[in-house]
Amino acid sequence: MARRTGRRPGKPDTREAILDAARTAFAERGFDAASIRAIAATAGVDPALVHHYFGSKDQLFLAAMNAPVNPGELIPRIVAGDRDGIGERLVRLFLGVWDSPAGTAGVALLRSAMSNEWTARLLREFLVTQVLRRVLDHLDVDPAELPLRGSLVASQLIGLAVMRHVVRLEPIASAPAETLVAVVAPTVQRYLTGDLPT
Amino acid sequence: MARRTGRRPGKPDTREAILDAARTAFAERGFDAASIRAIAATAGVDPALVHHYFGSKDQLFLAAMNAPVNPGELIPRIVAGDRDGIGERLVRLFLGVWDSPAGTAGVALLRSAMSNEWTARLLREFLVTQVLRRVLDHLDVDPAELPLRGSLVASQLIGLAVMRHVVRLEPIASAPAETLVAVVAPTVQRYLTGDLPT
Repeated sequence: MARRTGRRPGKPDTREAILDAARTAFAERGFDAASIRAIAATAGVDPALVHHYFGSKDQLFLAAMNAPVNPGELIPRIVAGDRDGIGERLVRLFLGVWDSPAGTAGVALLRSAMSNEWTARLLREFLVTQVLRRVLDHLDVDPAELPLRGSLVASQLIGLAVMRHVVRLEPIASAPAETLVAVVAPTVQRYLTGDLPT
Repeated sequence: MARRTGRRPGKPDTREAILDAARTAFAERGFDAASIRAIAATAGVDPALVHHYFGSKDQLFLAAMNAPVNPGELIPRIVAGDRDGIGERLVRLFLGVWDSPAGTAGVALLRSAMSNEWTARLLREFLVTQVLRRVLDHLDVDPAELPLRGSLVASQLIGLAVMRHVVRLEPIASAPAETLVAVVAPTVQRYLTGDLPT
Protein backbone atom coordinates (compact mmCIF):
# COMPACT_ATOMS: atom_id res chain seq x y z
CA MET A 1 0.00 0.00 0.00
CA ALA A 2 1.14 3.52 -0.73
CA ARG A 3 1.87 5.51 2.38
CA ARG A 4 0.12 8.80 2.75
CA THR A 5 2.49 11.71 2.58
CA GLY A 6 2.14 15.40 3.20
CA ARG A 7 1.35 17.40 6.28
CA ARG A 8 -0.81 15.58 8.82
CA PRO A 9 -1.67 18.32 11.31
CA GLY A 10 -2.10 17.09 14.87
CA LYS A 11 -2.47 13.69 16.38
CA PRO A 12 -5.31 11.68 14.85
CA ASP A 13 -6.91 11.23 18.27
CA THR A 14 -7.06 14.95 18.96
CA ARG A 15 -8.31 15.79 15.48
CA GLU A 16 -11.02 13.16 15.69
CA ALA A 17 -12.07 14.29 19.17
CA ILE A 18 -12.48 17.83 17.85
CA LEU A 19 -14.40 16.66 14.78
CA ASP A 20 -16.70 14.50 16.91
CA ALA A 21 -17.39 17.40 19.24
CA ALA A 22 -17.98 19.66 16.24
CA ARG A 23 -20.48 17.27 14.63
CA THR A 24 -22.44 17.06 17.85
CA ALA A 25 -22.41 20.81 18.39
CA PHE A 26 -23.37 21.72 14.82
CA ALA A 27 -26.17 19.15 14.71
CA GLU A 28 -27.53 19.94 18.18
CA ARG A 29 -27.20 23.72 18.27
CA GLY A 30 -26.93 24.65 14.61
CA PHE A 31 -24.00 26.31 12.89
CA ASP A 32 -24.61 29.83 14.18
CA ALA A 33 -25.08 28.91 17.84
CA ALA A 34 -22.23 26.39 18.01
CA SER A 35 -19.02 27.98 19.29
CA ILE A 36 -15.41 26.98 18.79
CA ARG A 37 -14.93 27.54 22.53
CA ALA A 38 -17.63 25.02 23.48
CA ILE A 39 -16.43 22.51 20.88
CA ALA A 40 -12.89 22.77 22.23
CA ALA A 41 -14.15 22.28 25.79
CA THR A 42 -16.05 19.13 24.79
CA ALA A 43 -12.97 17.79 23.04
CA GLY A 44 -10.78 18.71 26.04
CA VAL A 45 -8.44 20.99 24.09
CA ASP A 46 -7.63 24.67 23.94
CA PRO A 47 -9.72 26.73 21.44
CA ALA A 48 -6.47 27.95 19.88
CA LEU A 49 -5.69 24.37 18.91
CA VAL A 50 -9.01 24.08 17.06
CA HIS A 51 -8.16 27.20 15.08
CA HIS A 52 -4.66 25.89 14.50
CA TYR A 53 -5.89 22.57 13.12
CA PHE A 54 -8.94 23.69 11.18
CA GLY A 55 -8.85 27.46 10.68
CA SER A 56 -12.23 29.17 10.73
CA LYS A 57 -15.56 27.86 12.03
CA ASP A 58 -16.64 27.46 8.39
CA GLN A 59 -13.63 25.28 7.70
CA LEU A 60 -14.18 23.22 10.86
CA PHE A 61 -17.77 22.65 9.76
CA LEU A 62 -16.71 21.51 6.28
CA ALA A 63 -14.18 19.12 7.82
CA ALA A 64 -16.76 17.77 10.28
CA MET A 65 -19.17 17.08 7.39
CA ASN A 66 -16.53 15.58 5.11
CA ALA A 67 -17.76 18.14 2.60
CA PRO A 68 -16.15 17.38 -0.75
CA VAL A 69 -16.07 21.03 -1.81
CA ASN A 70 -15.93 24.41 -0.12
CA PRO A 71 -18.91 26.48 -1.26
CA GLY A 72 -17.15 29.56 0.08
CA GLU A 73 -14.64 29.20 -2.73
CA LEU A 74 -17.15 28.37 -5.47
CA ILE A 75 -20.09 30.64 -4.83
CA PRO A 76 -18.34 34.00 -5.39
CA ARG A 77 -18.10 32.95 -9.05
CA ILE A 78 -21.87 32.56 -9.18
CA VAL A 79 -22.85 35.81 -7.57
CA ALA A 80 -20.25 37.86 -9.45
CA GLY A 81 -22.13 38.06 -12.76
CA ASP A 82 -25.43 39.52 -13.84
CA ARG A 83 -28.49 38.93 -11.66
CA ASP A 84 -30.58 37.34 -14.42
CA GLY A 85 -27.92 34.68 -15.02
CA ILE A 86 -27.48 33.57 -11.43
CA GLY A 87 -29.90 30.64 -11.76
CA GLU A 88 -28.05 29.34 -14.79
CA ARG A 89 -24.63 29.70 -13.16
CA LEU A 90 -25.83 28.03 -9.96
CA VAL A 91 -27.29 25.00 -11.77
CA ARG A 92 -24.17 24.69 -13.94
CA LEU A 93 -21.84 24.82 -10.92
CA PHE A 94 -24.01 22.40 -8.95
CA LEU A 95 -24.10 19.82 -11.75
CA GLY A 96 -20.37 20.28 -12.35
CA VAL A 97 -19.56 19.44 -8.73
CA TRP A 98 -21.89 16.42 -8.71
CA ASP A 99 -20.52 15.15 -12.04
CA SER A 100 -16.95 15.45 -10.71
CA PRO A 101 -15.21 13.00 -8.35
CA ALA A 102 -16.63 15.11 -5.49
CA GLY A 103 -20.06 13.80 -6.49
CA THR A 104 -19.26 10.41 -4.99
CA ALA A 105 -18.82 12.03 -1.60
CA GLY A 106 -22.00 13.99 -2.24
CA VAL A 107 -23.98 10.81 -2.83
CA ALA A 108 -22.53 9.31 0.37
CA LEU A 109 -23.53 12.42 2.31
CA LEU A 110 -27.02 12.38 0.84
CA ARG A 111 -27.45 8.69 1.68
CA SER A 112 -26.32 9.28 5.21
CA ALA A 113 -28.63 12.28 5.61
CA MET A 114 -31.57 10.18 4.43
CA SER A 115 -31.06 7.50 7.06
CA ASN A 116 -29.58 9.43 9.97
CA GLU A 117 -31.31 12.36 11.69
CA TRP A 118 -28.02 13.91 12.79
CA THR A 119 -26.50 13.89 9.36
CA ALA A 120 -29.77 15.33 8.06
CA ARG A 121 -29.37 18.21 10.52
CA LEU A 122 -25.77 18.77 9.42
CA LEU A 123 -26.82 18.74 5.77
CA ARG A 124 -29.54 21.28 6.56
CA GLU A 125 -27.05 23.55 8.32
CA PHE A 126 -24.64 23.11 5.42
CA LEU A 127 -27.26 24.07 2.84
CA VAL A 128 -28.42 27.11 4.78
CA THR A 129 -25.15 28.55 6.08
CA GLN A 130 -22.63 27.48 3.46
CA VAL A 131 -24.63 27.55 0.25
CA LEU A 132 -27.97 29.35 0.30
CA ARG A 133 -27.01 32.24 2.57
CA ARG A 134 -23.97 33.01 0.43
CA VAL A 135 -26.08 33.12 -2.72
CA LEU A 136 -29.10 34.91 -1.29
CA ASP A 137 -27.15 37.63 0.48
CA HIS A 138 -26.25 39.01 -2.92
CA LEU A 139 -29.78 39.25 -4.25
CA ASP A 140 -31.87 42.35 -3.89
CA VAL A 141 -35.06 40.66 -2.71
CA ASP A 142 -37.32 40.97 0.33
CA PRO A 143 -35.33 39.49 3.25
CA ALA A 144 -38.51 37.93 4.63
CA GLU A 145 -38.72 35.79 1.50
CA LEU A 146 -35.13 34.52 1.61
CA PRO A 147 -35.75 31.31 3.60
CA LEU A 148 -38.54 30.18 1.28
CA ARG A 149 -36.54 31.07 -1.84
CA GLY A 150 -33.51 29.24 -0.53
CA SER A 151 -35.36 26.10 0.44
CA LEU A 152 -37.13 25.99 -2.93
CA VAL A 153 -33.79 26.18 -4.72
CA ALA A 154 -32.48 23.41 -2.47
CA SER A 155 -35.52 21.23 -3.21
CA GLN A 156 -34.99 21.46 -6.98
CA LEU A 157 -31.22 20.99 -6.87
CA ILE A 158 -31.23 18.09 -4.39
CA GLY A 159 -34.05 16.45 -6.36
CA LEU A 160 -31.95 16.81 -9.50
CA ALA A 161 -28.93 15.20 -7.79
CA VAL A 162 -31.08 12.34 -6.47
CA MET A 163 -32.54 11.61 -9.90
CA ARG A 164 -29.22 11.93 -11.74
CA HIS A 165 -26.93 10.11 -9.33
CA VAL A 166 -29.00 7.87 -7.06
CA VAL A 167 -32.32 6.85 -8.61
CA ARG A 168 -30.76 7.30 -12.07
CA LEU A 169 -33.98 8.17 -13.82
CA GLU A 170 -33.47 8.67 -17.55
CA PRO A 171 -32.92 10.92 -19.36
CA ILE A 172 -31.76 13.01 -16.36
CA ALA A 173 -29.23 10.31 -15.43
CA SER A 174 -27.32 10.51 -18.74
CA ALA A 175 -28.23 13.90 -20.20
CA PRO A 176 -25.40 16.35 -20.90
CA ALA A 177 -25.17 18.82 -18.03
CA GLU A 178 -25.95 21.70 -20.38
CA THR A 179 -29.29 20.14 -21.35
CA LEU A 180 -30.29 20.13 -17.71
CA VAL A 181 -28.92 23.63 -17.14
CA ALA A 182 -31.12 24.91 -19.96
CA VAL A 183 -34.34 23.42 -18.59
CA VAL A 184 -33.77 23.78 -14.84
CA ALA A 185 -32.10 27.22 -14.72
CA PRO A 186 -35.39 29.11 -15.28
CA THR A 187 -36.88 27.29 -12.29
CA VAL A 188 -33.99 28.21 -10.01
CA GLN A 189 -33.94 31.77 -11.32
CA ARG A 190 -37.66 32.16 -10.56
CA TYR A 191 -37.17 30.78 -7.04
CA LEU A 192 -34.28 33.20 -6.48
CA THR A 193 -35.56 36.45 -7.99
CA GLY A 194 -39.03 35.92 -9.46
CA ASP A 195 -42.37 36.96 -8.01
CA LEU A 196 -43.52 34.32 -5.55
CA PRO A 197 -47.31 34.10 -5.23
CA THR A 198 -47.43 34.03 -1.43
CA MET B 1 -52.57 -7.57 20.62
CA ALA B 2 -55.47 -7.11 18.27
CA ARG B 3 -55.80 -9.87 15.73
CA ARG B 4 -55.89 -8.85 12.13
CA THR B 5 -59.17 -9.60 10.49
CA GLY B 6 -60.39 -9.60 6.94
CA ARG B 7 -59.38 -11.61 3.93
CA ARG B 8 -55.84 -12.98 4.04
CA PRO B 9 -55.39 -14.44 0.56
CA GLY B 10 -53.00 -17.36 0.31
CA LYS B 11 -50.42 -18.84 2.59
CA PRO B 12 -47.82 -16.32 3.78
CA ASP B 13 -45.00 -18.46 2.34
CA THR B 14 -46.49 -18.56 -1.12
CA ARG B 15 -47.35 -14.86 -1.10
CA GLU B 16 -43.84 -13.96 0.02
CA ALA B 17 -42.25 -16.22 -2.58
CA ILE B 18 -44.27 -14.48 -5.29
CA LEU B 19 -43.43 -11.01 -3.94
CA ASP B 20 -39.73 -11.89 -3.77
CA ALA B 21 -39.76 -13.16 -7.33
CA ALA B 22 -41.67 -10.06 -8.41
CA ARG B 23 -39.18 -7.66 -6.78
CA THR B 24 -36.30 -9.40 -8.51
CA ALA B 25 -38.03 -9.43 -11.88
CA PHE B 26 -39.20 -5.81 -11.76
CA ALA B 27 -35.77 -4.56 -10.61
CA GLU B 28 -33.78 -6.69 -13.05
CA ARG B 29 -35.93 -6.51 -16.17
CA GLY B 30 -38.07 -3.44 -15.55
CA PHE B 31 -41.82 -3.29 -15.21
CA ASP B 32 -42.67 -3.67 -18.89
CA ALA B 33 -40.41 -6.64 -19.60
CA ALA B 34 -41.19 -8.55 -16.41
CA SER B 35 -43.95 -11.12 -16.96
CA ILE B 36 -46.36 -12.69 -14.52
CA ARG B 37 -45.55 -16.03 -16.15
CA ALA B 38 -41.82 -15.72 -15.40
CA ILE B 39 -42.48 -14.44 -11.87
CA ALA B 40 -44.77 -17.40 -11.22
CA ALA B 41 -42.14 -19.80 -12.55
CA THR B 42 -39.47 -18.34 -10.26
CA ALA B 43 -41.83 -18.64 -7.30
CA GLY B 44 -42.78 -22.19 -8.31
CA VAL B 45 -46.50 -21.48 -8.64
CA ASP B 46 -49.09 -21.33 -11.38
CA PRO B 47 -49.53 -17.90 -13.06
CA ALA B 48 -53.25 -18.12 -12.28
CA LEU B 49 -52.37 -18.15 -8.59
CA VAL B 50 -50.44 -14.89 -8.97
CA HIS B 51 -53.47 -13.28 -10.58
CA HIS B 52 -55.71 -14.78 -7.91
CA TYR B 53 -53.60 -13.36 -5.08
CA PHE B 54 -52.62 -9.98 -6.51
CA GLY B 55 -54.83 -9.19 -9.50
CA SER B 56 -53.11 -7.24 -12.28
CA LYS B 57 -49.40 -6.78 -12.93
CA ASP B 58 -49.80 -3.18 -11.70
CA GLN B 59 -51.24 -4.42 -8.44
CA LEU B 60 -48.53 -7.03 -8.02
CA PHE B 61 -45.93 -4.32 -8.56
CA LEU B 62 -47.53 -2.05 -5.94
CA ALA B 63 -47.63 -4.95 -3.46
CA ALA B 64 -43.98 -5.85 -4.20
CA MET B 65 -42.96 -2.24 -3.53
CA ASN B 66 -45.08 -1.84 -0.41
CA ALA B 67 -46.45 1.22 -2.18
CA PRO B 68 -48.58 3.15 0.32
CA VAL B 69 -50.95 4.42 -2.37
CA ASN B 70 -52.15 3.31 -5.78
CA PRO B 71 -51.40 6.06 -8.30
CA GLY B 72 -53.79 4.37 -10.71
CA GLU B 73 -56.62 5.42 -8.40
CA LEU B 74 -55.36 8.92 -7.71
CA ILE B 75 -54.06 10.19 -11.03
CA PRO B 76 -57.33 10.14 -12.98
CA ARG B 77 -58.42 13.02 -10.72
CA ILE B 78 -55.40 15.02 -11.82
CA VAL B 79 -55.71 14.54 -15.52
CA ALA B 80 -59.49 15.02 -15.57
CA GLY B 81 -59.47 18.83 -15.31
CA ASP B 82 -58.13 21.62 -17.48
CA ARG B 83 -54.65 21.29 -18.95
CA ASP B 84 -53.34 24.51 -17.44
CA GLY B 85 -54.20 23.34 -13.92
CA ILE B 86 -52.53 19.93 -14.08
CA GLY B 87 -49.32 21.13 -12.43
CA GLU B 88 -51.24 22.60 -9.52
CA ARG B 89 -53.39 19.49 -9.07
CA LEU B 90 -50.35 17.20 -9.25
CA VAL B 91 -48.39 19.14 -6.61
CA ARG B 92 -51.47 19.33 -4.35
CA LEU B 93 -52.11 15.59 -4.62
CA PHE B 94 -48.43 14.76 -4.11
CA LEU B 95 -48.14 16.88 -0.96
CA GLY B 96 -51.44 15.52 0.32
CA VAL B 97 -50.21 11.94 0.07
CA TRP B 98 -46.86 12.78 1.71
CA ASP B 99 -48.56 14.74 4.50
CA SER B 100 -50.93 11.80 5.18
CA PRO B 101 -50.06 8.61 7.10
CA ALA B 102 -48.93 7.18 3.74
CA GLY B 103 -46.03 9.64 3.85
CA THR B 104 -44.31 7.56 6.53
CA ALA B 105 -44.14 4.64 4.12
CA GLY B 106 -42.99 7.07 1.44
CA VAL B 107 -40.07 8.20 3.57
CA ALA B 108 -39.14 4.58 4.27
CA LEU B 109 -39.22 3.82 0.56
CA LEU B 110 -37.12 6.85 -0.26
CA ARG B 111 -34.56 5.95 2.41
CA SER B 112 -34.34 2.43 1.09
CA ALA B 113 -33.96 3.63 -2.50
CA MET B 114 -31.10 5.92 -1.45
CA SER B 115 -29.09 3.10 0.09
CA ASN B 116 -30.05 0.10 -2.00
CA GLU B 117 -29.57 -0.13 -5.75
CA TRP B 118 -32.43 -2.59 -6.18
CA THR B 119 -34.93 -0.46 -4.35
CA ALA B 120 -33.72 2.50 -6.39
CA ARG B 121 -34.53 0.53 -9.56
CA LEU B 122 -37.98 -0.33 -8.24
CA LEU B 123 -38.62 3.30 -7.32
CA ARG B 124 -37.54 4.34 -10.82
CA GLU B 125 -39.91 1.82 -12.41
CA PHE B 126 -42.67 2.97 -10.06
CA LEU B 127 -42.19 6.63 -10.99
CA VAL B 128 -42.12 5.94 -14.70
CA THR B 129 -44.83 3.32 -15.12
CA GLN B 130 -47.22 4.10 -12.29
CA VAL B 131 -47.00 7.87 -11.99
CA LEU B 132 -45.37 9.75 -14.85
CA ARG B 133 -46.70 7.67 -17.72
CA ARG B 134 -50.24 8.01 -16.42
CA VAL B 135 -49.96 11.77 -16.23
CA LEU B 136 -48.02 12.34 -19.43
CA ASP B 137 -50.21 10.15 -21.60
CA HIS B 138 -52.95 12.71 -21.22
CA LEU B 139 -50.90 15.68 -22.34
CA ASP B 140 -50.76 16.83 -25.92
CA VAL B 141 -47.00 17.28 -26.15
CA ASP B 142 -44.25 15.90 -28.38
CA PRO B 143 -43.87 12.24 -27.38
CA ALA B 144 -40.10 12.52 -27.80
CA GLU B 145 -40.06 15.04 -24.94
CA LEU B 146 -42.09 12.95 -22.51
CA PRO B 147 -39.18 11.20 -20.74
CA LEU B 148 -37.38 14.49 -20.04
CA ARG B 149 -40.60 16.19 -18.93
CA GLY B 150 -41.44 13.31 -16.64
CA SER B 151 -38.03 13.09 -15.03
CA LEU B 152 -37.94 16.85 -14.45
CA VAL B 153 -41.30 16.66 -12.66
CA ALA B 154 -39.97 13.76 -10.59
CA SER B 155 -36.83 15.72 -9.68
CA GLN B 156 -38.82 18.66 -8.33
CA LEU B 157 -41.41 16.57 -6.48
CA ILE B 158 -38.94 14.14 -4.90
CA GLY B 159 -36.73 17.07 -3.92
CA LEU B 160 -39.74 18.69 -2.28
CA ALA B 161 -40.54 15.50 -0.35
CA VAL B 162 -36.90 15.15 0.76
CA MET B 163 -36.75 18.74 2.02
CA ARG B 164 -40.17 18.62 3.71
CA HIS B 165 -40.02 15.19 5.31
CA VAL B 166 -36.39 14.07 5.58
CA VAL B 167 -33.96 16.99 5.69
CA ARG B 168 -36.75 19.19 7.15
CA LEU B 169 -35.43 22.41 5.75
CA GLU B 170 -37.53 25.39 6.86
CA PRO B 171 -39.83 26.89 5.79
CA ILE B 172 -40.61 23.98 3.43
CA ALA B 173 -40.78 21.58 6.39
CA SER B 174 -43.63 23.42 8.15
CA ALA B 175 -45.27 25.51 5.42
CA PRO B 176 -48.96 24.92 4.72
CA ALA B 177 -49.28 22.66 1.70
CA GLU B 178 -51.10 25.38 -0.24
CA THR B 179 -48.15 27.75 0.13
CA LEU B 180 -45.94 25.17 -1.56
CA VAL B 181 -48.57 24.39 -4.17
CA ALA B 182 -48.66 28.07 -5.13
CA VAL B 183 -44.89 28.39 -5.62
CA VAL B 184 -44.06 24.95 -7.04
CA ALA B 185 -47.05 24.39 -9.34
CA PRO B 186 -45.74 26.79 -12.03
CA THR B 187 -42.49 24.81 -12.14
CA VAL B 188 -44.27 21.49 -12.58
CA GLN B 189 -46.66 22.99 -15.12
CA ARG B 190 -43.73 24.29 -17.18
CA TYR B 191 -42.02 20.90 -17.07
CA LEU B 192 -45.25 19.21 -18.18
CA THR B 193 -46.54 21.53 -20.91
CA GLY B 194 -44.20 24.51 -21.31
CA ASP B 195 -41.63 25.12 -24.01
CA LEU B 196 -38.43 23.30 -23.10
CA PRO B 197 -35.29 24.96 -24.50
CA THR B 198 -33.66 21.79 -25.80
